[in-house]
Amino acid sequence: MSGRLAVIGLGPGDQRYLTQEAREALEAAEALYGYGPYLDRVPMRPGQARHPSDNREEGIRAEAALRHAADGTHVAVVSGGDPGVFAMAASVLEAVESGPDAWRALDIAIVPGITAMLAVAARAGAPLGHDFCALSLSDNLKPWELIERRLDAAASAGFVIALYNPVSRARPWQLAKAFALLSRHLLSTTPVIFGRAVGRADEGMTVTTLGAASAIEADMATLIIVGSRETTLIAREGQTPLVYTPRAVEGAMA
Amino acid sequence: MSGRLAVIGLGPGDQRYLTQEAREALEAAEALYGYGPYLDRVPMRPGQARHPSDNREEGIRAEAALRHAADGTHVAVVSGGDPGVFAMAASVLEAVESGPDAWRALDIAIVPGITAMLAVAARAGAPLGHDFCALSLSDNLKPWELIERRLDAAASAGFVIALYNPVSRARPWQLAKAFALLSRHLLSTTPVIFGRAVGRADEGMTVTTLGAASAIEADMATLIIVGSRETTLIAREGQTPLVYTPRAVEGAMA
Repeated sequence: MSGRLAVIGLGPGDQRYLTQEAREALEAAEALYGYGPYLDRVPMRPGQARHPSDNREEGIRAEAALRHAADGTHVAVVSGGDPGVFAMAASVLEAVESGPDAWRALDIAIVPGITAMLAVAARAGAPLGHDFCALSLSDNLKPWELIERRLDAAASAGFVIALYNPVSRARPWQLAKAFALLSRHLLSTTPVIFGRAVGRADEGMTVTTLGAASAIEADMATLIIVGSRETTLIAREGQTPLVYTPRAVEGAMA
Repeated sequence: MSGRLAVIGLGPGDQRYLTQEAREALEAAEALYGYGPYLDRVPMRPGQARHPSDNREEGIRAEAALRHAADGTHVAVVSGGDPGVFAMAASVLEAVESGPDAWRALDIAIVPGITAMLAVAARAGAPLGHDFCALSLSDNLKPWELIERRLDAAASAGFVIALYNPVSRARPWQLAKAFALLSRHLLSTTPVIFGRAVGRADEGMTVTTLGAASAIEADMATLIIVGSRETTLIAREGQTPLVYTPRAVEGAMA
């Protein structure tokens, strides 16, 4: 019996974002690995073993899951959002690349999910309606200078920017610095969206501007979208404004 | 009775990518609008009216749906992939912005879906495992010079690049030009993924390199992912290679 490993995206928040494919893949697994709070979101099934681990232990978790699958077990690694976007899929494939040959022979499947930027964008309107990029602000795994260079490139070329991992206890100053840097390219009136814990009971959505955006409004569960110069607000009486980026760009860029 | 309008993402291909939220939103609607082949993917429900339209008629479709919702009807506009990524949500909000005040008073909801780049990435491995951008190659609504500038900015700053709308009958040369331009920044060995009709019966996945990538392999249903200089292939005996972009970037960029 040959082993199987599925890396499954749960989407953000509760089960509303779970796809049919993800639901079936979760049911089919004999053993589940993942960050404890993500595993808690998966309905229990008799006979299915659970192996929760800490948030910081992606590499260790990936290796444990691969070792288990190589025994001939059908293993699932659960991931918040989409496993391929700043989540577990790359960790698992890093472990495959550096691991024993037997791991390459496994039946490996990645099951996509709704990533946080899509859920936050949908709540706000359609801020990702035109060209955009997704950037992790964490300088744990890349130099801060490279993050600055990417922010410069993205903003000056007119991409809408989704910021993942904007802040953590060990990284308190990076987000304010990013806002300052983006202000060199973008007007202070540029729309900025803070989406916190989208799809969960404690969800919070704030629409502000680059000039008024404060880094202290963000925490580890926040996804931030910074508009381009085309991104617009539609005011609505008694409702939050809708934010969207039009599909058309008139003429050439400045 | 006040009107409601939901813009619903079906994900690419068949129903495996449909989320729980999208399924419920489709069931709740009294009238469905959308491109005919997308509507055909939604299970029929008695008493639910269907208004199919052509692919090119986003603006007309959006206005018809809003007018219908303003009559007090619960209307759904269906969209392939995610409605907020090069799809119907921005069209609907453009129509709201330029339409009568009554349209702003509607209860408008965007229901996210799996966008093509996430589905193609999952099939290939984890090529979007680090910073990436999504760019439409269509110069119908923006000048080609701006697309070139964005390709330059994204590739030189080290983003992985997902190309939407790579080619159409009216836009035959743009993709080859984009590959040539990207070759100025990236090695000819850079992995390139062609994902066609992912999730459908006629799905096709090709992993090649920037040096060998041929624009004639793409059609309107193709999503292309061009790696960064960190993107790697894991060779596997008797199976297609896995493509992934590691989470870590060592040292500074050249």
